[in-house]
Amino acid sequence: MISQKQVKSLHLRKYRSLNNQFIVEGSRSISSAIDAKARIDSVFYTLDFSKKNPTILEKLNKIPSGIVSSKEIRKLSPSTNPSGILATCKIPKFESFNKNKNIIFLDNVSDPGNLGTILRTALWFGIDQIGYSSKSIDPYNPKVVRSAMGAHFSISWLGELSLDDIKGYKILGADHRGKSIHTINIDNQRWALIMGSEARGISKSAHSHIDELIGIPKVGDGESLNVGVSMGILLHELTK
Amino acid sequence: MISQKQVKSLHLRKYRSLNNQFIVEGSRSISSAIDAKARIDSVFYTLDFSKKNPTILEKLNKIPSGIVSSKEIRKLSPSTNPSGILATCKIPKFESFNKNKNIIFLDNVSDPGNLGTILRTALWFGIDQIGYSSKSIDPYNPKVVRSAMGAHFSISWLGELSLDDIKGYKILGADHRGKSIHTINIDNQRWALIMGSEARGISKSAHSHIDELIGIPKVGDGESLNVGVSMGILLHELTK
Repeated sequence: MISQKQVKSLHLRKYRSLNNQFIVEGSRSISSAIDAKARIDSVFYTLDFSKKNPTILEKLNKIPSGIVSSKEIRKLSPSTNPSGILATCKIPKFESFNKNKNIIFLDNVSDPGNLGTILRTALWFGIDQIGYSSKSIDPYNPKVVRSAMGAHFSISWLGELSLDDIKGYKILGADHRGKSIHTINIDNQRWALIMGSEARGISKSAHSHIDELIGIPKVGDGESLNVGVSMGILLHELTK
Repeated sequence: MISQKQVKSLHLRKYRSLNNQFIVEGSRSISSAIDAKARIDSVFYTLDFSKKNPTILEKLNKIPSGIVSSKEIRKLSPSTNPSGILATCKIPKFESFNKNKNIIFLDNVSDPGNLGTILRTALWFGIDQIGYSSKSIDPYNPKVVRSAMGAHFSISWLGELSLDDIKGYKILGADHRGKSIHTINIDNQRWALIMGSEARGISKSAHSHIDELIGIPKVGDGESLNVGVSMGILLHELTK
């Protein structure tokens, strides 16, 4: 079982990489991890939590687990409102992605809540391969994990990627100046969808790889769409 | 000009209501507020900010403003990473909403980031009337304001609402068990779209008002969609 000091070290990206582990919080996400047979190392929960949530504790079965005080869980948890249960999981090692399936490429997406939403949304639309540029936020950041609500455990491929790795795909870039998503015809081509950063959109270097820019027609006079919302609408159309 | 103590009091909902003011941060949002002729009371910024951003300061024109130290702005700002400029604005008083235009009703939406995203997304699709239940998060909460990125200043109606107030509308409820959005035919009826809470969906009491539940077909095996993403996809279809 991992020490409490080691758990706390996983608040930082450096130690997540070094120890190849990340923190998962809350019964819903931990339950998803168990169902997906994720490699859970240790689980910590409070006595109070255990009284209120017997079902999830039964599911833990042989996973090493320990009761901690509510003061301790506040220290272990990277969250300001700890849920009372916390697990450490191995970061999965993925083989190379499946070139016969569509993929999403995140070009410097930096907000943790947005990345979590993106993972959930991609899965809803059956896209379970996500690549990201080196400057994107770490997908195992605790805030990403929280907002993804268990999506990490159903993704078949998640890793850092260079755009040179996705040759052979029809490369689509999300951009409000792009061709309307209503008029795009993908047929049966495999595609890679690039989503740019919240502040600057798709980077210059990524632009040179793009076959087609696609956008969502603006009906009113809003200034912009959130990156997760945009991707949701594009996937809704692309997977029709 | 408002005192620094009063600015700090606006971190709390109670004092926002009492003083009828809220805090707006960052040059982008403050610029939107100026463009929309919002009633800005005071602006505070650091010397460092003023050197780097002369354009926005010129736009301030006759608005009372003052230079504060970076230590002071950290205290004035409700954010952990203050941007260097902060304004206080009057909360607009709205007349009753326009019954000839569509409306969105938020049934206990509680996450500030989600509400901000919802306001941006609604505007993009030309829906500028938003009602919310009494248990929803305060739309003038600083985190909502930050994530809305200026959307507050383009919304024509935003207020607490009871579902009895929207009689005469075709009332649609977002629910994953609802009829596929692809098969919905709205024609030229005015509609009200109800979005439920992140954790529990649409409340029992709201359900009784709904004419039709509408949902987004699931293509993969994701568990759920974020409320902002769902609303984006539904509005994309409803406003086609």
